[in-house]
Amino acid sequence: MALENYIRDIQGFPKEGILFKDITPLLLDSKARLECLEILVSTLKDKKIDKVIGVESRGFFFGILLAQELSVGFIPVRKPNKLPFATLSASYDLEYGSDTLEIHCDAIQKGERILIHDDVLATGGTAKAVCELVERLGGIIVQCNFIMELTLLNGRAKIAGNEIFTAITF
Amino acid sequence: MALENYIRDIQGFPKEGILFKDITPLLLDSKARLECLEILVSTLKDKKIDKVIGVESRGFFFGILLAQELSVGFIPVRKPNKLPFATLSASYDLEYGSDTLEIHCDAIQKGERILIHDDVLATGGTAKAVCELVERLGGIIVQCNFIMELTLLNGRAKIAGNEIFTAITF
Repeated sequence: MALENYIRDIQGFPKEGILFKDITPLLLDSKARLECLEILVSTLKDKKIDKVIGVESRGFFFGILLAQELSVGFIPVRKPNKLPFATLSASYDLEYGSDTLEIHCDAIQKGERILIHDDVLATGGTAKAVCELVERLGGIIVQCNFIMELTLLNGRAKIAGNEIFTAITF
Repeated sequence: MALENYIRDIQGFPKEGILFKDITPLLLDSKARLECLEILVSTLKDKKIDKVIGVESRGFFFGILLAQELSVGFIPVRKPNKLPFATLSASYDLEYGSDTLEIHCDAIQKGERILIHDDVLATGGTAKAVCELVERLGGIIVQCNFIMELTLLNGRAKIAGNEIFTAITF
């Protein structure tokens, strides 16, 4: 099964000039979804992982599936003012301006081993901000894990030093 | 295990006067999360279900876990301008003003049997809008399924006629 067949190209979303990679066909097909999950989990079998982070909001889907598969806790990292308890935040640059992500302060205990999941590794700005949050809470990053990677944008460079796994490359 | 112990009360979120029910402790504890999933799925064993809807964004968590458990497709229902493909939308009233939800037009085929999941049944406005989207696409609502129900708000009345299941009542 070629997983990339379940990623739909949408030209001009969310704005002109951007080719958006839509994962909803992958979510809608239970066999493709299961295969994607098995691929994402395949490199984690021998690793000790305490918790999985899923990044708002497309990282929530396979993030919580990974946590369930590994029988470990799940942590949502969210946009500002979405998490109700005490939070820690990190900002990152966008093409124009910046954005911020938050994590609950009590989500990670010092020394816990964390898997970070998001749907796509693009410029790496989001992933880098999440890595920063994990490290500031004393967590250890086991792997940065993505459904897909847009290789031309070289997001890997921003999170160099961490193990990176992507199921599909474009 | 008392699941309600994994729901954290946050006074004054997102605004003064509101007592918010925070599900992040439930997501963080893999045993409680599994038990919650088993309870949510327990009433579905003998039902034919083709697809599960999860409502943005706290309905995504157990929504996709339910879809995975049932080996069926998952459909995200989202806030406006988040879904990239052709969408159908439904609006619903809030305390002040209104809000809108969208679904991809190709997510449901006529006659498909749909499970709707969200984290909380409060006033029922969101759930009613989702029911409307499913019906406009020709889907059949098998059950409206929630982690918790705030009974004082009587949201059930808004989606009367549908089967409703909630794991925890407050």
